[in-house]
Amino acid sequence: MNGKQISENVISRLPKYYRYLQELDSRKITRVSSKTISQALNITASQVRQDLSNFGGFGQQGYGYDTDYLKARIREILGLNDNHNAIIIGGGRIGQALANYKGFENENVYVRAVFDIETSHVKNVNNIEVLNMLELDNYIKTHKVDVAIISVQKEQAKTVAERVVNLGVTAIWNFAPIDLNFEGRAVCENINMSESLMRLIYKSKKNK
Amino acid sequence: MNGKQISENVISRLPKYYRYLQELDSRKITRVSSKTISQALNITASQVRQDLSNFGGFGQQGYGYDTDYLKARIREILGLNDNHNAIIIGGGRIGQALANYKGFENENVYVRAVFDIETSHVKNVNNIEVLNMLELDNYIKTHKVDVAIISVQKEQAKTVAERVVNLGVTAIWNFAPIDLNFEGRAVCENINMSESLMRLIYKSKKNK
Repeated sequence: MNGKQISENVISRLPKYYRYLQELDSRKITRVSSKTISQALNITASQVRQDLSNFGGFGQQGYGYDTDYLKARIREILGLNDNHNAIIIGGGRIGQALANYKGFENENVYVRAVFDIETSHVKNVNNIEVLNMLELDNYIKTHKVDVAIISVQKEQAKTVAERVVNLGVTAIWNFAPIDLNFEGRAVCENINMSESLMRLIYKSKKNK
Repeated sequence: MNGKQISENVISRLPKYYRYLQELDSRKITRVSSKTISQALNITASQVRQDLSNFGGFGQQGYGYDTDYLKARIREILGLNDNHNAIIIGGGRIGQALANYKGFENENVYVRAVFDIETSHVKNVNNIEVLNMLELDNYIKTHKVDVAIISVQKEQAKTVAERVVNLGVTAIWNFAPIDLNFEGRAVCENINMSESLMRLIYKSKKNK
């Protein structure tokens, strides 16, 4: 990144702005006010203005923001213009679902291979190459792998993630129910469905 | 809940404690210090002590916490002792993966039916009943449905979730790429994979 540092909190909201701008785009809306964004995303209008000012998105009084410009800037900042090669490690139900989920291509993320210890069990993966775990190290050494998606069992997740990070993969997207962290060596996002479900159950109980 | 109100932030950490205590349990560990918990979960030890004191989990100097007691208390607070019936709406890849994910049974959440507009497309759902969307309203009126899992396309998500909330379902677990909110009428947890992927891509780009 050139220019000033953007805070983690702002970053965490950028995907929400981006998604909303995509929605406006599909509705052919080309201008939007901070107030409208604020209401749609449940963020205060002043926070919206402050966030968007971080990357030169200055709304004009009585005019609002140019949605095309904002979307292009956020896309650029998020790095969504570059292509990213991903591999899925663990071809069980979650791995197969992820292999089939075309939504990632909106973010220019392409799943190139699915690895599993038992390749014959991996079905319906959308013509994506299925490889044995024994080939993992060699594959990473010989291909550009930007993102490793971890969908193995909890017990194997840490070991297998360490293995790919040691081989030079710098982004881990983890679906195993364990928080992974590779401070300084790789970035990681954990999707923890079990924790989300527990929060839901708790909130639902409290609400009754 | 009887007794004092537990803050949202504490609640959001409870599933992490719970998961860690399960892990200790599987390793036959019966006592644990706040320091050990702190290191495992990347939460400061003083925060751990403060969080756990909220529900009568008082560690003893030189002894630590009784893991069985803590686990049982957190399980109770989170409402995990009660059985919860869930239905999945949308039997595409994500819906099918969720129907097959046995992990939810740890939280006593049982998927009882999968709804889709085209039932013949819904396969491999672990002997769970597959029903046509036309039967949804009647099903909810005649069965106890605690959680509706939304895994339809983004465009349908809001409408279908509104429909089940209007029928009295009070907990929505949403996997469609749109944030749902039913302020006061139902609780909701959104699993937004696309936003997580965008954050990952951004952090990875920044790290290079």
